[in-house]
Amino acid sequence: MDSVKVIEIKKSIFESNEIDADSLRGELKAKGVFLLNLMSSPGSGKTTTLVRTIGLLKDKLRIAVMEADIDSDVDALKIKEATGVASIQLHTGGMCHLDAEMTRQGLDNVPLDGLDLVILENVGNLVCPAEFDTGACCNAMILSVPEGHDKPLKYPLMFQVCDLVLINKTDVLPYFDFDLEKCREYIHLRNPKARVIPICAKTGEGVDAFAQWLLEEVTKWKN
Amino acid sequence: MDSVKVIEIKKSIFESNEIDADSLRGELKAKGVFLLNLMSSPGSGKTTTLVRTIGLLKDKLRIAVMEADIDSDVDALKIKEATGVASIQLHTGGMCHLDAEMTRQGLDNVPLDGLDLVILENVGNLVCPAEFDTGACCNAMILSVPEGHDKPLKYPLMFQVCDLVLINKTDVLPYFDFDLEKCREYIHLRNPKARVIPICAKTGEGVDAFAQWLLEEVTKWKN
Repeated sequence: MDSVKVIEIKKSIFESNEIDADSLRGELKAKGVFLLNLMSSPGSGKTTTLVRTIGLLKDKLRIAVMEADIDSDVDALKIKEATGVASIQLHTGGMCHLDAEMTRQGLDNVPLDGLDLVILENVGNLVCPAEFDTGACCNAMILSVPEGHDKPLKYPLMFQVCDLVLINKTDVLPYFDFDLEKCREYIHLRNPKARVIPICAKTGEGVDAFAQWLLEEVTKWKN
Repeated sequence: MDSVKVIEIKKSIFESNEIDADSLRGELKAKGVFLLNLMSSPGSGKTTTLVRTIGLLKDKLRIAVMEADIDSDVDALKIKEATGVASIQLHTGGMCHLDAEMTRQGLDNVPLDGLDLVILENVGNLVCPAEFDTGACCNAMILSVPEGHDKPLKYPLMFQVCDLVLINKTDVLPYFDFDLEKCREYIHLRNPKARVIPICAKTGEGVDAFAQWLLEEVTKWKN
């Protein structure tokens, strides 16, 4: 199997994550690079969604991916092999989230010049990553059908900080007690402005709407 | 709807969680009360599994449940209404895990005298709860089929600290690329002694094996 670059990231020594996040966003703006922070629980389909989305966008945007994981490099390999875009693995050494300085350590290993979009696949966790501004230009998350439509009630912060919620695995809706309209209602209770897009990363259904949203966000950022 | 007791738990002021966890276990041993710490990702089916299991055990054991959640009290209500056993809700105020002191704050609100088993449903998170000894006599976890069989590779610590892994939602095995034997192999790579029990909390399949395991553990603890 092919190998990918693996970066061991260290815990931030900076006190103020917010200042560092704003500074990182400023640098990305100056360089015209859009950084998307994608969050979700383990197994909700982040990597599969990215493979599909990059397939739709790679002729329009120059893309790189940073895969954060506590251990293993299976996701970075999967992205690299399936899409051909530059992909690096960030090992958090047990840490449950990424902050702005950790994200910067990752970006230091990505050749930003000539890129339009960097996607950060955050650690699989619906709690902690929501608490830390990574310096990304936009936060998005995936909730998958098997997790249940009540999750915005139980994990409010994650839904509050995300501009976009993808509802993945719609192909298994017939087998789960998941109410899509109730889920939308709960999401908007937490965040009235959140865009909600149902998708099925496995079959590709709805992924074009996510790709279109992302393309528009990148274009706005660069202008 | 019925109401349940909701406890707002505070972050521990103690430096050494391990000492506190051992001390809590000692007190539980002296009282003959078995505390099970049940962990998993959000939406893997902890509450439904508990409802089924308590149904099988409540004539044999005197049981209480502590439901930890960042927000909401839907789980404690569900347990109380479906099983009739004492159930309290612990609000963590955004915290991603419980430590021994936080667990003790919960237990202070449970009448331990006359109980055989207290089940702690930890915060839905496959990362942080694994790092903190709650003082429980045993750790168990649920991995559900839609999350994928590769999770022991990506979240090693959770699988290392658990004596028992329930693989839930086996009814949807036909709709997911989930390899049960590979999952078993990955779990035993992390923890060769872990007991693995496939269940379907929705239909009840396999839950009797979990109930039997729990009954045996409680009996061992009391002798």
